[in-house]
Amino acid sequence: MSEDSRGDDNNLESSRESSARSAARGEFDFIERVRRQELKRLGLTQDNSSLVRGIGDDAAVISQRAGLDTVITADLLVEGVDFDLDRFNSAPRDIGHKALAVSLSDVAAMGARPRFCLLSVGVPEARWRGPFLDEFYRGVRSLASRHGVVIIGGDTSRTPDRVVVDSIVLGEVKSGRAVLRSGARPGDLIFVTGSLGGAAAGLKILERRTAADLKTPAGAEGLSRAERRLIRRQNRPTPRVEWGALLGEKGLANAMIDLSDGLSSDLGRLCRESGVGATIRAENVPLDPALRAATADGAEALSLALDGGEDFELLFTVSPRKASRLPGRVGGVAVTCVGEATDRAGSVKLSRGEKSEALAPAGFEHFRRDGG
Amino acid sequence: MSEDSRGDDNNLESSRESSARSAARGEFDFIERVRRQELKRLGLTQDNSSLVRGIGDDAAVISQRAGLDTVITADLLVEGVDFDLDRFNSAPRDIGHKALAVSLSDVAAMGARPRFCLLSVGVPEARWRGPFLDEFYRGVRSLASRHGVVIIGGDTSRTPDRVVVDSIVLGEVKSGRAVLRSGARPGDLIFVTGSLGGAAAGLKILERRTAADLKTPAGAEGLSRAERRLIRRQNRPTPRVEWGALLGEKGLANAMIDLSDGLSSDLGRLCRESGVGATIRAENVPLDPALRAATADGAEALSLALDGGEDFELLFTVSPRKASRLPGRVGGVAVTCVGEATDRAGSVKLSRGEKSEALAPAGFEHFRRDGG
Repeated sequence: MSEDSRGDDNNLESSRESSARSAARGEFDFIERVRRQELKRLGLTQDNSSLVRGIGDDAAVISQRAGLDTVITADLLVEGVDFDLDRFNSAPRDIGHKALAVSLSDVAAMGARPRFCLLSVGVPEARWRGPFLDEFYRGVRSLASRHGVVIIGGDTSRTPDRVVVDSIVLGEVKSGRAVLRSGARPGDLIFVTGSLGGAAAGLKILERRTAADLKTPAGAEGLSRAERRLIRRQNRPTPRVEWGALLGEKGLANAMIDLSDGLSSDLGRLCRESGVGATIRAENVPLDPALRAATADGAEALSLALDGGEDFELLFTVSPRKASRLPGRVGGVAVTCVGEATDRAGSVKLSRGEKSEALAPAGFEHFRRDGG
Repeated sequence: MSEDSRGDDNNLESSRESSARSAARGEFDFIERVRRQELKRLGLTQDNSSLVRGIGDDAAVISQRAGLDTVITADLLVEGVDFDLDRFNSAPRDIGHKALAVSLSDVAAMGARPRFCLLSVGVPEARWRGPFLDEFYRGVRSLASRHGVVIIGGDTSRTPDRVVVDSIVLGEVKSGRAVLRSGARPGDLIFVTGSLGGAAAGLKILERRTAADLKTPAGAEGLSRAERRLIRRQNRPTPRVEWGALLGEKGLANAMIDLSDGLSSDLGRLCRESGVGATIRAENVPLDPALRAATADGAEALSLALDGGEDFELLFTVSPRKASRLPGRVGGVAVTCVGEATDRAGSVKLSRGEKSEALAPAGFEHFRRDGG
């Protein structure tokens, strides 16, 4: 249990002294390195930026500005639950990317622009000695710079045996412009960005391969181009940062949520919060092109698009009179109208041609508290 | 590794469907409950507070105000490293309290007033089914209300076998008034709040008892009043929120840090950041009264006060001309002048009477990256 730290040594001082007197201040040095790299990247020193100070201090400091709201989210990822470094052969860099991506997606789903992030990372001894943290932060930094997000802090700790990451992102949006889940109105058109089902299909490929051949971890050999694309969607999702910020800035969306657990689950949440119902047209659901290419089974593809999680696309509702103001593409990503909100609260339907059935939430959830 | 979730089931859809169709939306329901309790406590609904919206949405929303800076910190606590539920018999409520206390202490150390918190909590299946989360949040809520801190979000996730908590606190301070570690000047007087060594002594008591009798976890039986007080200092530390906010508001401190790893380590950090040295007078170090009562060994007590971590007192430096403006007590807590900053950068000394020796960092640190 605690054999690695305080556990076995009854003499607190001596263990603390010997550890510290070895002068190997690992954790501290690492955070200091992240801080210096970040300040260098920003071209600032700790004291000359009016916007950010205190990186590497007890806490980070950010200026507030009148007329803006701060949006903040935290997402916890746990090895063996949310990712699997050994089994799926995903790289530490992927974990860094994905941890940040998940939180960027949440901020985008509020119509806000992400500005700052903090990463709390717990690492077991064995990985600490290797390149894990450097690679992890490479993934974080690469995605952060793409969106102008500054790493302002976090925490690094040891864990007994698994990597855990808590990713915290702060964004900004004009006061009162944050797009909540609760703002959908009957008659609103429902849109999604990009395409669906790819991340879940990627996970299936990884699971099949590792089940079939556990000795040879999934590599690129024997995978089609489409399959590799799907795996990449699972391991390195692209949060829809530009779409989210645009919808918030222009006040185009009445309600928004990001598709982390799957369209059926997340749409259900948005409807519940808004007190509306919804009808989704099956034929309009934008399937990931690689998913189309990788499978001939149309029903399976639709099921993955409706119920598969982790696509991190945005689902949002727009008043019909505003729909024409939506741009066709933002950053190369299109949106698709998949249905509309109805006044039948709690009723979420999937229509196929003339037929219609209930669309029950079937996405992935971490936990069933009461479940068997 | 991942047998509990995605691991063993190669058929993604069916496992996701069956789990979700059981309609036991545990995680979601729990967060919803925390949200409702918090809104009720605040006497507001999600939509009528201009300060906070979005609790339970993709992210929380907080108004920015001109003339203020936001201070933000995240602290990761891991079962088996930072706390031990089974071995030390510390209650889930204690973990909730301590997780928040650690971050409140960081915000206090910036001279800021804590306003909001987010808790990311990973819980293993076995504890999820029990009262852990309710008790944990009771501990969080109790400490949060004491300081007017609002719980605005977080994440709840499953872990394979250990509890992990990431505690995020946001505070506010007048623009430019945040107290950094780097502001100490030669000649500054060095103060600490409260008293030292109690938390480390409490940990020693817990370790001895559980080592002596693993079958009977440490209870109240057989413990002196002083020993119980020391255990409480370890399990339920009191962050110096009022002192921190006051020092920031009145601009009295040039530099500040909280004593999480121990005076010798944390003072070393402050000196390094400030480019100063320091001399601490051993006879002035305020020992925890319960520590005095519990041990006759003065050298051991001083060692715990200098090197023992987790007291969560504040250490700050003040220009001599401002020292008289320090209040004697704030919220019943006194401060003690323990020494002064010098112009010998990197030299941290401990003086006893006429003699003086180097005060090497000897506090607890999670990790030694290069260490044996």
